[in-house]
Amino acid sequence: MFAIRNTLHFCNISPIRHLSTIPFSSDFIFRQLFDATSSTYTYLLADTTTREAVLIDPVFEHAGRDAQLCKDLNLNLKYAMNTHMHADHITGTGVLKKLTKCKSVISKASGADADVHVNETDVVTFGRHKLQIFATPGHTNGCITYYSPEQGIAFTGDTLLIRGCGRTDFQEGNSEMLYHNVHKKIFTLPPATQLYPAHDYKGLTSTTVDEEKRLNPRLTKSLQEFVKIMDNLNLPYPKMIDKAVPANKVCGVFELSPQ
Amino acid sequence: MFAIRNTLHFCNISPIRHLSTIPFSSDFIFRQLFDATSSTYTYLLADTTTREAVLIDPVFEHAGRDAQLCKDLNLNLKYAMNTHMHADHITGTGVLKKLTKCKSVISKASGADADVHVNETDVVTFGRHKLQIFATPGHTNGCITYYSPEQGIAFTGDTLLIRGCGRTDFQEGNSEMLYHNVHKKIFTLPPATQLYPAHDYKGLTSTTVDEEKRLNPRLTKSLQEFVKIMDNLNLPYPKMIDKAVPANKVCGVFELSPQ
Repeated sequence: MFAIRNTLHFCNISPIRHLSTIPFSSDFIFRQLFDATSSTYTYLLADTTTREAVLIDPVFEHAGRDAQLCKDLNLNLKYAMNTHMHADHITGTGVLKKLTKCKSVISKASGADADVHVNETDVVTFGRHKLQIFATPGHTNGCITYYSPEQGIAFTGDTLLIRGCGRTDFQEGNSEMLYHNVHKKIFTLPPATQLYPAHDYKGLTSTTVDEEKRLNPRLTKSLQEFVKIMDNLNLPYPKMIDKAVPANKVCGVFELSPQ
Repeated sequence: MFAIRNTLHFCNISPIRHLSTIPFSSDFIFRQLFDATSSTYTYLLADTTTREAVLIDPVFEHAGRDAQLCKDLNLNLKYAMNTHMHADHITGTGVLKKLTKCKSVISKASGADADVHVNETDVVTFGRHKLQIFATPGHTNGCITYYSPEQGIAFTGDTLLIRGCGRTDFQEGNSEMLYHNVHKKIFTLPPATQLYPAHDYKGLTSTTVDEEKRLNPRLTKSLQEFVKIMDNLNLPYPKMIDKAVPANKVCGVFELSPQ
């Protein structure tokens, strides 16, 4: 495990920078989608030329909406991908496999079934667009971050939230590991990188590396302080976990038909 | 008023186009914000050079969040603007005037107080960025749409929603007028223009001119059919209207301190 003494250099507070926005390519489609029940964000990304699309963190109850949006935009859903095995909602991947011709994607380390298992350094492609994969465990063992350097965006799942982070008190949670992965793999991305989390509970929709390095109330602290904060959150047992995790182990449906 | 017989040429269904995304300028900041209670979207736009910012359709309960976000991003809020006098929530403009040095903006035709009254063809500026104003009455008499040709975005308020539109059965609502303004002023914008509404109730966050021209279940119909649909919605009396409209007439607070 990581040594606490090695982390003090992470705690410098950056000055406010006047960063340029990284514009999307003209052949890149981006849509953010929301589930009000679990405050989950789903993301639709696509290539305007080949019409190949991916969905990140789809929600079971909205699989129909998401498949319809792909149809409306004349997109072929290639992958329905998760950042991790969620405990607060059932993933839409299983239903989307039935509604479209997509394949499900999740990290090997998640322990969940999927058509495609990914690991650190793997790349997911749709059309000419690419998402690099970083292993960012800490909230769960299988947490990954999807990153597009060209579009200047990263999908951080529950690893890094806007002014917050995922809890680390269940599902192999490890606050030291989360801290190190955020600092080593997310905070080292270009400061203007727009970060899109799996959730927000205050109506914020995105943040940047720069903002979280300056303003995250937990992750700007030292590792010792961070671990103490995470150890003392005293959060209630997640109400959906006993239903969501077994379902998410099999792509969101208990009996997944072979495709 | 508009003649029904003149509208049939609006009803052609466009084919699916493979449109290019209009990228944001690198000196343009865009953030979408959400109020889960009224499903209202608020928008923060800013110039990265001058740090001048505007908020479109802020919500009373989130004025603190929105002022904090401006501070976090080192932005000076110039205008807190409304697309119309809302009936479903109290605007945040009054509180934002107290929390920041902003001025409130609304259309003259709304009948509401504001520091700045705007009309069709007026332009709102923040830094080097501009928003053109179109009068798009129909949901209310004072509804306006803010449009940036450079960024390829328009803020349609309740005039045009994603696969829907605002109701026309209260507050000077007029379905013929709404239909004509959508067709003449919004559907004539470039097809790839990204449309950001004041609300969505299904977790969708934006649409395009092209999508709504092809897929809006109400506005792809003839005027006669549209009017019939709007006449038969049988929606309940808006629960917030008796509180929201009087408050919104005075920028969201009943006793607005002079600035």
